[in-house]
Amino acid sequence: MEDLERLVADAREGVPRAVGKLVSLVEDASPRLRELAAALAPYTGHARVVGLTGSPGVGKSTTTSALVTALRADGRRVGVLAVDPSSPFSGGALLGDRVRMSEHATDPGVFIRSMATRGHLGGLAAATPQALRVLDAAGCDVVLVETVGVGQSEVEVVALSDTTVVLLAPGMGDGVQAAKAGILEVADVFAVNKADRDGADATVRELQHMMRLNRVEKGPSWRVPVVRTVASSGQGIDDLVAALDDHHTFLADHDRLGEGPRRRARAEIEAIALADLRARIRSLAGSTALDALAERVVDGALDPFAAADEVVASVRG
Amino acid sequence: MEDLERLVADAREGVPRAVGKLVSLVEDASPRLRELAAALAPYTGHARVVGLTGSPGVGKSTTTSALVTALRADGRRVGVLAVDPSSPFSGGALLGDRVRMSEHATDPGVFIRSMATRGHLGGLAAATPQALRVLDAAGCDVVLVETVGVGQSEVEVVALSDTTVVLLAPGMGDGVQAAKAGILEVADVFAVNKADRDGADATVRELQHMMRLNRVEKGPSWRVPVVRTVASSGQGIDDLVAALDDHHTFLADHDRLGEGPRRRARAEIEAIALADLRARIRSLAGSTALDALAERVVDGALDPFAAADEVVASVRG
Repeated sequence: MEDLERLVADAREGVPRAVGKLVSLVEDASPRLRELAAALAPYTGHARVVGLTGSPGVGKSTTTSALVTALRADGRRVGVLAVDPSSPFSGGALLGDRVRMSEHATDPGVFIRSMATRGHLGGLAAATPQALRVLDAAGCDVVLVETVGVGQSEVEVVALSDTTVVLLAPGMGDGVQAAKAGILEVADVFAVNKADRDGADATVRELQHMMRLNRVEKGPSWRVPVVRTVASSGQGIDDLVAALDDHHTFLADHDRLGEGPRRRARAEIEAIALADLRARIRSLAGSTALDALAERVVDGALDPFAAADEVVASVRG
Repeated sequence: MEDLERLVADAREGVPRAVGKLVSLVEDASPRLRELAAALAPYTGHARVVGLTGSPGVGKSTTTSALVTALRADGRRVGVLAVDPSSPFSGGALLGDRVRMSEHATDPGVFIRSMATRGHLGGLAAATPQALRVLDAAGCDVVLVETVGVGQSEVEVVALSDTTVVLLAPGMGDGVQAAKAGILEVADVFAVNKADRDGADATVRELQHMMRLNRVEKGPSWRVPVVRTVASSGQGIDDLVAALDDHHTFLADHDRLGEGPRRRARAEIEAIALADLRARIRSLAGSTALDALAERVVDGALDPFAAADEVVASVRG
């Protein structure tokens, strides 16, 4: 194991290899994460976190890449964290997506990392804030967190952002689905990508209509904007950057910039505590060992809720 | 709330509405789940659980539907549980998939349920075994658990099956990805669907080759078969049913039929216990309340690991 202080110092200088190694420590839930958290603490608190999410095919990676270009043109240092919820099946798609980011691979002002969390006992809720601290300490002004695929875990991740962008594309029926599924509440900004395609106007109108019906406001007076983009050509990306900055200004004006960091800290603490408790559950021995209890449940001698009561009582000592 | 004993009695008679209502109780994590577990206990332990998983587009729903047809022709009662890991984005795809199952909608020997777990504190690990008990008590001989989309949660679900089928399709590069991601170890049976397409032979050979290299054996002497199917025409489905029955016979011959039920009970107990502990964490007050600790972490007065230690100490009383 390399010296942690050395790696942190190199990461602060923007050495990509050092940043990469530190994110790897996070992915692998290294026993040194405690030490890493302490070493990074003095250098964090600067980066803004922007989450991007949406169904497969709406153009998340292309939009992320276009945002990187625009933010770099603006002189900002950018981190990209592509979160893969450790699916054994998403590897292929992930690889394909990442290739599109290759134009930024040689830019020293950009750090791009795909992150899996297979080894991480605390899951995404713990691993993502930890990786964000690495990119924050490395001097990123903005970190884009792109979630790959669909699933509950991604929803948890977007909740960790300061600003959440929900991407949609015309003609995917996403508008209605979005309303049904409650993603209206998750979005701080909507981007209707592929806005040069048929149906874009309808999708924008649908979203605006639903937001009026639902009167979704992110706190007093933030009206969720709907931005049209064609990420593949860069069209509308400046509008999207402006919407992100507007939301940041709004949070600052309302003394709410601390909300994102507090949400992240809260989720991380809870996830670490639950991972600790899970480890205690799995190390129970004797009559409250999981295997012994499972046997009694299968035999019909105990119901699973009563078994869980015994587990909780044992863990609580 | 209807009388639970009445619903259970009706479900045992095969009344679809009663089965549906009981699964809804599970989805919503009804406070009466304890009572439900006790009411169902005497009538369970019969159904075999077959998990089906694979990347989007390999034909999971079509294969599930074809399996239902084959199993019904054989006189078996069949349950289908389509697990949606509560993504706000998967609603549309799910709906489309379910339509393909409509040919079985009027068959009294088939119960089909899509299940979301949004309200379920124990997540999929707890909800799935609970829903399986309902379908088991309703007299199903086989329950097919189809996982929609990709993600860590689905992997957890397939681990709850007695027999797991991993579906692949030619030309998706799935073989290599499967090897990298470790799904070889998850599969009891491989089905190469769309086997009439170019590249099917290559996919089959690739899988067989990788299994030889990895010498994946599910316990002594079970050799994971690779079955070719064209689910849309029914071709190869009888071979798939035969492979499922072979695996069941293998488990019986080796006195291992109890493994699936024990895995399910173990996962359910742990998930219920963790949900209980999470609720205790969230109700902590004073200096160990999550909000108070998160504030100190954001201020740099505490690192998240030390904060989690305080949470665990408080929960343990």
